[in-house]
Amino acid sequence: MKQSHLFTKTRFEAPKDEVSKNAELLIRAGFIHKDMAGVYSYLPLGLRVMNKLSGIIREEMYALGANEVSLAALQNKELWEKTGRWSDDVVDNWFKTEFKNGSEAGLGFSHEEPLTNLLKDHIRSYKDLPVSVFQIQTKFRNEVRAKSGILRGREFLMKDLYSFARDQKEHDEFYEKAKEAYVKIYNRAGIGEKTHLTFASGGVFSKYSHEFQTETEAGEDTIHFDAKKNIAINKEVFTDDVLESLGVDKKNLVEKKAIEVGNIFTLGTRFSEPLGLTYTDEKGEVHPMIMGCYGIGVGRLMGTIVEVLGEEDAMVWPDEVSPFKVHLISIANGDADVEKDAKEAYEKLKQAGIEVLFDDRELRAGEKFADADLIGIPHRIVMSKKTREAGTVEYQDRKKKETKNIGIDEVIETLA
Amino acid sequence: MKQSHLFTKTRFEAPKDEVSKNAELLIRAGFIHKDMAGVYSYLPLGLRVMNKLSGIIREEMYALGANEVSLAALQNKELWEKTGRWSDDVVDNWFKTEFKNGSEAGLGFSHEEPLTNLLKDHIRSYKDLPVSVFQIQTKFRNEVRAKSGILRGREFLMKDLYSFARDQKEHDEFYEKAKEAYVKIYNRAGIGEKTHLTFASGGVFSKYSHEFQTETEAGEDTIHFDAKKNIAINKEVFTDDVLESLGVDKKNLVEKKAIEVGNIFTLGTRFSEPLGLTYTDEKGEVHPMIMGCYGIGVGRLMGTIVEVLGEEDAMVWPDEVSPFKVHLISIANGDADVEKDAKEAYEKLKQAGIEVLFDDRELRAGEKFADADLIGIPHRIVMSKKTREAGTVEYQDRKKKETKNIGIDEVIETLA
Repeated sequence: MKQSHLFTKTRFEAPKDEVSKNAELLIRAGFIHKDMAGVYSYLPLGLRVMNKLSGIIREEMYALGANEVSLAALQNKELWEKTGRWSDDVVDNWFKTEFKNGSEAGLGFSHEEPLTNLLKDHIRSYKDLPVSVFQIQTKFRNEVRAKSGILRGREFLMKDLYSFARDQKEHDEFYEKAKEAYVKIYNRAGIGEKTHLTFASGGVFSKYSHEFQTETEAGEDTIHFDAKKNIAINKEVFTDDVLESLGVDKKNLVEKKAIEVGNIFTLGTRFSEPLGLTYTDEKGEVHPMIMGCYGIGVGRLMGTIVEVLGEEDAMVWPDEVSPFKVHLISIANGDADVEKDAKEAYEKLKQAGIEVLFDDRELRAGEKFADADLIGIPHRIVMSKKTREAGTVEYQDRKKKETKNIGIDEVIETLA
Repeated sequence: MKQSHLFTKTRFEAPKDEVSKNAELLIRAGFIHKDMAGVYSYLPLGLRVMNKLSGIIREEMYALGANEVSLAALQNKELWEKTGRWSDDVVDNWFKTEFKNGSEAGLGFSHEEPLTNLLKDHIRSYKDLPVSVFQIQTKFRNEVRAKSGILRGREFLMKDLYSFARDQKEHDEFYEKAKEAYVKIYNRAGIGEKTHLTFASGGVFSKYSHEFQTETEAGEDTIHFDAKKNIAINKEVFTDDVLESLGVDKKNLVEKKAIEVGNIFTLGTRFSEPLGLTYTDEKGEVHPMIMGCYGIGVGRLMGTIVEVLGEEDAMVWPDEVSPFKVHLISIANGDADVEKDAKEAYEKLKQAGIEVLFDDRELRAGEKFADADLIGIPHRIVMSKKTREAGTVEYQDRKKKETKNIGIDEVIETLA
């Protein structure tokens, strides 16, 4: 894409009421727009990052064998009354609205109820199980405070996966596979090393749930991390009993601030029972299905990457997540030959299937570099009169910081 | 994808309260689920169709040079008050909700206000114009009646494109290109021949707006179609004056029922003026931008295709829209050789990059064919003991109805 064609501009300052690092950097770089507290819109560069993250998540969900759906945001009160989750006294972050006939509807903060209900039309026999279903869809949560940028939005894109099994054993097998899929997702998203499997409070149907917590000062959670065992324990279940049951020695634990970038949970029959989602086994006996749920906030994941990797005036996106792979910067200063070369390089990169943002704007070099630092594309190619004379381009892998003067074909070979 | 792995099942009957042909067929085929009146969820096959349609639309929007964004559904009351569209007396299909602090928010039925406001942060000079921005995003409309299935949902996916120009001439040029893009979209979606450019009522800033109306008995609109001139006139502007201004002779007109599958509209300064979206021209003078809006409901488009092409118990999706290109049906009846051959053919098709749904289920042939007719994949390959003995497969292009017995490699060559 030509940068002259991108409508967004970078800016020196974020809105005054923005206090989170992630939103500040993303607004300044033109990735997102703040509509209201906790409500953000995604601009072209930001949308591309969201699509990259959604693409990674989708691939790992498909690898798990999950079916993809897209459920409605508007929620049927009746279903949520059956599970006891309609009341604002029980769920304190509902957004509710009304149909023209005066009846109430909710805006989904999660989708256990509608999906459980829907599956009744399709799954009845043990032969149909196990089944897993996911979506990447917009959730609404009426947060009292929303000061964490896209880490905690009132409206946000979420991947929610639900599993349905015959029995605990079948459930546990899927649960373990889902855990592995999550590890792959964070690795691919570039925050694998900082993200720890964390034991958190379970419920009626399991002693623990599992969270994936990413170390960063911006985190709202506190975890106790055991680097040797590579597991963490959420503060909420940090008791001597729990430490003992996990075989963890207190002296190996380090306290860290962290952001919950995913959580997985055994639901048991919490929803299948009240909503009547059952299957018939080999003997003709009827049982409620055993369910699990597995969430990742896509916006929160993007915000976490910024919290971990963002600097004062600069960002370097991980390769798989970056809005473009390469930033091609032409410093022509009116030199027609440099302009022509840069255009040719742009076409060559595109033909090689490399996603490239081409800064073809008539701006001073300093402005272009400041923009490029903020936008954070990990590979940079600079073409100028100087590089033209040398018959090379200036190439930088920004993660490594060193700069090479090599031929454009060599760069393409490295990147393709 | 293996059909044994798809969780949805076809069914004999749609819910009793469903009266529209599109929703009946799509529910029976397992493409969608009805959550409430006018509220539908998309199941794997239906989501694939929506993604195909979104893909076509996205390509044509990019070809127009438009930037893609994704704006928030939650709407800031202040902005809509500035344009006079907040009141329920002015806009009768708002869904409204409340933040925890008691302040109101709307759920976007359209996005002129937030986008116009957002552009103020990015576009200031004539050098930045023209600009066009689109999104494919969920809209909410609180319809009093919702009996048309996914033709008129209370929550639906919509492509909305907005253009911003310096002056009327620049606007008109883009408007004409957008018109052409729309024609391409309907052609690719397989309903081009039945879809007519239609003159409809304009507003303060233009005499007409333009609709794209698809002929079908399910249509809620009435158009007067001139086949020779290949234009239509919406009933709402069907006057002698209009006929004269368009040079249309009444006796060439045929009255038809039709569905509005798209509309394009000159907005002038209706939104840029109250919201203060201006640019500075070459002389340093400040002007409000000239805007246009261009909508296509993706769900409505899908529903229209079903209304036009759907039959009692069968559907044939257009090639570019179908959830899969090929339906491979194995009639093994326990024959291990046929099963093995079918699996090999499945792998071959996938390797050739052909999207294939592989009916590997242990069901009677009649059930498989009934399902395949409902699901509506346009190319069908049947493999059985009989075809195995002949060393061929049975291939049918369902649009043509004739069946050929040819080798699998030949089928792949035809389709790839």
